[in-house]
Amino acid sequence: MSNSTAVQRVSVIGLGAMGAALAKALLAGGHEVTVWNRTAARAEPLVAEGATVASTSAEAMAAGDLVILCVLDDAAVREHVEPAAEQLRGRVLVNLTTTTPEQGRSLGRWAEANGVELIDGGIMAVPSMIGGPAAFLLYSGITAAFDRFRHVLDLFGRAEWVGTDYGAAAMYDLAILGGMYSMFAGFQQGGKMVRTTGGSAAHLATLMGPFLQAMAGMFAQYAPGIDDPASYVPEQSAEFTAGALTTINTAADEAGTPSELLQVLLKTVPGI
Amino acid sequence: MSNSTAVQRVSVIGLGAMGAALAKALLAGGHEVTVWNRTAARAEPLVAEGATVASTSAEAMAAGDLVILCVLDDAAVREHVEPAAEQLRGRVLVNLTTTTPEQGRSLGRWAEANGVELIDGGIMAVPSMIGGPAAFLLYSGITAAFDRFRHVLDLFGRAEWVGTDYGAAAMYDLAILGGMYSMFAGFQQGGKMVRTTGGSAAHLATLMGPFLQAMAGMFAQYAPGIDDPASYVPEQSAEFTAGALTTINTAADEAGTPSELLQVLLKTVPGI
Repeated sequence: MSNSTAVQRVSVIGLGAMGAALAKALLAGGHEVTVWNRTAARAEPLVAEGATVASTSAEAMAAGDLVILCVLDDAAVREHVEPAAEQLRGRVLVNLTTTTPEQGRSLGRWAEANGVELIDGGIMAVPSMIGGPAAFLLYSGITAAFDRFRHVLDLFGRAEWVGTDYGAAAMYDLAILGGMYSMFAGFQQGGKMVRTTGGSAAHLATLMGPFLQAMAGMFAQYAPGIDDPASYVPEQSAEFTAGALTTINTAADEAGTPSELLQVLLKTVPGI
Repeated sequence: MSNSTAVQRVSVIGLGAMGAALAKALLAGGHEVTVWNRTAARAEPLVAEGATVASTSAEAMAAGDLVILCVLDDAAVREHVEPAAEQLRGRVLVNLTTTTPEQGRSLGRWAEANGVELIDGGIMAVPSMIGGPAAFLLYSGITAAFDRFRHVLDLFGRAEWVGTDYGAAAMYDLAILGGMYSMFAGFQQGGKMVRTTGGSAAHLATLMGPFLQAMAGMFAQYAPGIDDPASYVPEQSAEFTAGALTTINTAADEAGTPSELLQVLLKTVPGI
């Protein structure tokens, strides 16, 4: 078992904007970093900061006790790991490539069959946020491997463990993004509506932004409605919420900005 | 013209939880408050704090230079104001009853025909928040009347002027609520998804809440996409966003939690 504060040998496969940011954070944390990228020139700034470049991705994997994958998609992940099963055996693989939960589970089965400890992850940050206070990353899979390397993973941003299902990190990631896109779609619909009164989305932003920030602070209060719906009593009755949603739809229709989004909300009244 | 800091004669018609909170804030601000409610007993705690009770709503209206209406719906508003046109003439009427923009405009036409200066409003707070730092209220209609009584209206919460269209306050109100319900629906969908991995909406709340609070701070940055779409270049390409939404839908479908909400987002990709 590694010392929890020790310098680790870490490999980073894939040096897009995100992979490069991850490698930079590892170097800043004092670890021994080996990198590989299809376009070798992407590695040069990292070499200047102390990274070693491997000539193949398999060689890079062999150089790390912890191997971080951040490539295009699940197909690219498979292209890297399948021919390198021997090099990966006994190591911890952290896949930070965006995939679906099912792809994460399938990779987990491959890892187990090949003696690799997999942690599947999701990055809740843009590259410029990596290593900063606002970044957090979701991880799931082999708990012991996560515990062993948590001090390394925390260099990227707050490390959040979401369970032993290999697909959990991807599911939380996509659930959070789904919430984000729902909120943005609501803002865009609202912007269209207020513009019909001579208002603007810019003005709405100053009003809706702080209001939704306050309301997002109440998710924990509404979570029992999802985790334990049988015993949950909504703060607003479904009739009240449906009435409000009907009024919102009426206003949107009368303004000439009808909305499928608002219609779906009325069909599946959120219980809050 | 009234002195902007002077004590005002203000009437409040309708003493539900919200109307009572409004009257209380006016009394705390030192104004001369006359109240009326269909069930007279609701007025007693306010009388103890210095309010005067009128025996009819028309009498209450005649007692105020500023008349606040906070009743059930637009039909109730009309029942109060139409027989009291004489008492309202020359006064400022602030309608804080929840109505649609079209109902607000129709009331504005009635007010203009009867020599009444209308401000139509929307309350972005629950009753317990009235007078506190988190409450804000939207107002639209006659600008001069708003300017004259702004110091009174600010007692309820931050007074936000949204334009001279009588329907604007209701439209902004409903736009903001639509955004809120969109966000809550996104949280609920996400909660269902993570539960299929052994996770919980309670855990998701701790992760999605701060993330969406950060993202709601970016509305202003995305507003030009609505106010001036022709010259707006999204931060993410529509293809990138559509790809993410496709992945989210795939994950929801594979988890056995398909979602009309997520399908609508994919049909009308939010441009961010």
